[in-house]
Amino acid sequence: MDLVDNPDLPYNVFAKACPSRGTLEHVTGRWGALTLGALSEGSLRFNELRRRVDGVSEKMLSQTLQALERDGLVHRDAQPTNPPRVDYELTPLGHEVAGRLLGLIHFVEGRMDEVLAARERYDTARGGR
Amino acid sequence: MDLVDNPDLPYNVFAKACPSRGTLEHVTGRWGALTLGALSEGSLRFNELRRRVDGVSEKMLSQTLQALERDGLVHRDAQPTNPPRVDYELTPLGHEVAGRLLGLIHFVEGRMDEVLAARERYDTARGGR
Repeated sequence: MDLVDNPDLPYNVFAKACPSRGTLEHVTGRWGALTLGALSEGSLRFNELRRRVDGVSEKMLSQTLQALERDGLVHRDAQPTNPPRVDYELTPLGHEVAGRLLGLIHFVEGRMDEVLAARERYDTARGGR
Repeated sequence: MDLVDNPDLPYNVFAKACPSRGTLEHVTGRWGALTLGALSEGSLRFNELRRRVDGVSEKMLSQTLQALERDGLVHRDAQPTNPPRVDYELTPLGHEVAGRLLGLIHFVEGRMDEVLAARERYDTARGGR
């Protein structure tokens, strides 16, 4: 069985020009994954999100949110108050994506002892050559 | 319930300094995700992988494989032939990660019609201002 390509679908992330590759990158990129994960708990304002996604710059968070909004994964809700209040929340599609991502995130977090042991073996083998 | 942080785990990708963030990035990065996905079908030689992961440069694929090998997700098998034959395959841990990634990849591919419709709405709204 071909585990990777699904012939029933017109989209294929393995093809350079397929638009699904861009969306996968928005979802899994350095900040996209953490932004979706943070918003899976509920809507957040920009500065709340920035604190939650430790290390992200204002510029990168803006760009990340814009890409996710354009792909229909995040909804931006601007209230006409003074100062304007802007909340970000996941769309239903965004929730489905975030659920799968969090499954991956929790799996990685849960297996980090193995990962760190592998790194030590790798570095020792290189250092001992 | 806190969906994001798991207090039972010492690792947390939302914390900038946590080593799990680096591993998540190796796994979900631009080329890491496609490399793991391609290897989920079975072992591949370097040039086979390069053709499969359409668009990756030789240098980027080397760096990607090295990071995944160091994290214990990919095994590099070098045969002492002339010319040397090098195969790459997933470790058991790599298979588990790849399975979760492919779930996400297939989900994204399957919902691209919705994503592209959202992009069109977004661009139209911006253009119409």
